[in-house]
Amino acid sequence: DLVAELGKQFEQKSLSGKTVTITAGPTREAIDPVRYISNHSSGKMGFALAQAAVEAGANVNLICGPVTLATPERVNRIDVESCQNMYDAVFETLPNTDIFIGAAAVADYRPATTADHKIKKQSDAMSIELVRNPDIISSVAATENKPFTVGFAAETQDVSGYAKGKLISKNLDMIIANDVSDKSIGFNSEDNAVVVIGHNYETSHGKANKYHLARVIVEHIAECLETQ
Amino acid sequence: DLVAELGKQFEQKSLSGKTVTITAGPTREAIDPVRYISNHSSGKMGFALAQAAVEAGANVNLICGPVTLATPERVNRIDVESCQNMYDAVFETLPNTDIFIGAAAVADYRPATTADHKIKKQSDAMSIELVRNPDIISSVAATENKPFTVGFAAETQDVSGYAKGKLISKNLDMIIANDVSDKSIGFNSEDNAVVVIGHNYETSHGKANKYHLARVIVEHIAECLETQ
Repeated sequence: DLVAELGKQFEQKSLSGKTVTITAGPTREAIDPVRYISNHSSGKMGFALAQAAVEAGANVNLICGPVTLATPERVNRIDVESCQNMYDAVFETLPNTDIFIGAAAVADYRPATTADHKIKKQSDAMSIELVRNPDIISSVAATENKPFTVGFAAETQDVSGYAKGKLISKNLDMIIANDVSDKSIGFNSEDNAVVVIGHNYETSHGKANKYHLARVIVEHIAECLETQ
Repeated sequence: DLVAELGKQFEQKSLSGKTVTITAGPTREAIDPVRYISNHSSGKMGFALAQAAVEAGANVNLICGPVTLATPERVNRIDVESCQNMYDAVFETLPNTDIFIGAAAVADYRPATTADHKIKKQSDAMSIELVRNPDIISSVAATENKPFTVGFAAETQDVSGYAKGKLISKNLDMIIANDVSDKSIGFNSEDNAVVVIGHNYETSHGKANKYHLARVIVEHIAECLETQ
């Protein structure tokens, strides 16, 4: 009957009962009240992952920088601006997180100081002193009871090589690598092409819609959790 | 009264036969293929001015940085990214421009060099060397047969003082000053509050919808052209 059928479908949901926390979009690092440093992340891949995870039965927190995307249904969206804001929001949700997916393009550096007032232009040249931001995903992966931790590597050269290096150095469980030098995929595009890399496998997925790839990635994660 | 006066102006199509070129939105100055420096301009004020100018009978070029706004009907929209792109587009349209409105929040500085590949994070601190961008509105106002040139001054302190200084130093015909330290107006807000400053007048307009203010500003410009 219908109730049994629905129950069966619910049981089959691969991430049922799991809480997934996903970061998405860029961060903005303030230079002064008007200016900031940011990057070209649209947030589309992270939002697609949030939707795919909800559809796989998970509870989903979506911690996102400034983006212009609609929130998928049943997703708990938390808006942030800077890396530090995102770090704080991630660690607030972490105690209840089973799977962490760092899809945000977090700024590696922020201005050493943020001016209270708009900096007036003066000299012909100037320089902005930058300091390192906290590394959110490394910090997550370094916690004692770390969640299954999935990173992204957006590179413009030696994509697979850099990605494997990150997987190991950051103590991740999985990394999704993509080549952002190809303008037809990646940042701001509807499509992407990724390589899913774990400690003992590497699977390429050719150019496809980001939502389709998100479902593929979510299934990869569910399989890894099952065999863990 | 003002409303009746506005209605009359718009019926009479006060800018009929004129070509207005408007810049809007932020610019993005590339650090590398992924990162950039930008600012919080939403482009709303420039887009509202484009709509008001079209409704006043003008031909309108709208040269805009990266924004997420719909193009008003009958507006010739030209999308650009950096200050240099915007400068080039402005000077292409300039020979046919009667009125130039610089509503864009153009970056004053750009990175001295743009890396071909994504810069890898290395040291704990780094600095970005910046060089001055061309000053688009000053360059427009310095041309021999300059259009009626209207600037904007987004300030966080001594708004009117800075604005008057800009009006004179940049050889503008009019400047629209607003205080961006008030979060309820200005960048990204639907509302704004401005002071319209010319060489022999200064008129304050309290908090109002940006489209309403755009009509007021267009009327100010039309009056100035009539009495020129």
